[in-house]
Amino acid sequence: MMKPPARSPEQRKQDALDRLEHDVDAWVSTADEHGTPYLVPLSFLWDGLTLLIATASASPTARNLLAGGKVRVALGPTRDVVLIEGTAEALPAADISPELGDGFAVKTGFDPRQLTSSYHYFRIRPQRLQAWREENELKNRELLREGEWLIS
Amino acid sequence: MMKPPARSPEQRKQDALDRLEHDVDAWVSTADEHGTPYLVPLSFLWDGLTLLIATASASPTARNLLAGGKVRVALGPTRDVVLIEGTAEALPAADISPELGDGFAVKTGFDPRQLTSSYHYFRIRPQRLQAWREENELKNRELLREGEWLIS
Repeated sequence: MMKPPARSPEQRKQDALDRLEHDVDAWVSTADEHGTPYLVPLSFLWDGLTLLIATASASPTARNLLAGGKVRVALGPTRDVVLIEGTAEALPAADISPELGDGFAVKTGFDPRQLTSSYHYFRIRPQRLQAWREENELKNRELLREGEWLIS
Repeated sequence: MMKPPARSPEQRKQDALDRLEHDVDAWVSTADEHGTPYLVPLSFLWDGLTLLIATASASPTARNLLAGGKVRVALGPTRDVVLIEGTAEALPAADISPELGDGFAVKTGFDPRQLTSSYHYFRIRPQRLQAWREENELKNRELLREGEWLIS
């Protein structure tokens, strides 16, 4: 099967931003302090700098993020990947502005403010972002490092 | 948007087995002993009981699995999920039979035996398997527990 040529870094950045803007779900991986990984799909809202997610306060994802805050997030299918390493800051539902809560509910179709059970929002700040499709794009896959885009 | 009715457990098991048989890639999440999660797409071969993956011995996935062996694997898109919790057993490349190595190479298009760098195979045995599409399938999502199918 012929594979398309590797995209330019600029194109990869644009494609990654398009996914951040328009994709609804991401794979969110966290871990507890014993090295037990957790992975679950969650909806998110991108604000241009961070991803906002929400999950039940009692869920493994919330517990792991409240304990450590390290997260790895994947967007896209396995052959058109945007992979993000980041840190997550917990935001109790009471700290979410009405505008942000509405934006999250409209984008994701899910409004934790309507629920009686306890939910946490988390703001994920990418420290590193990689994007690749096939093997020919493994080179130059890093687009953002230490929180800064490497491509203008 | 109208959502389809929840599938029966039997249908979910069949759909999960179809994905295990035919999907080429999975999301593989692991963690180190400090609680740092790792997540990467990897190709796999299903033998009816276990998933075989291969990754560079120096990769975070290999290091994490060699240190702890706990893994969480996701197949399918975020709205048609098969999620597996399992343990991974390391298989040095020298311990892979020619037939198994060939089967892996044919299924995945990737043959670590051809490489000069050090690779490890890992055999992942599902301890728990869940499958769901939308919220109406969250109930009854568990199909396999303690290594045994709950549905015949």
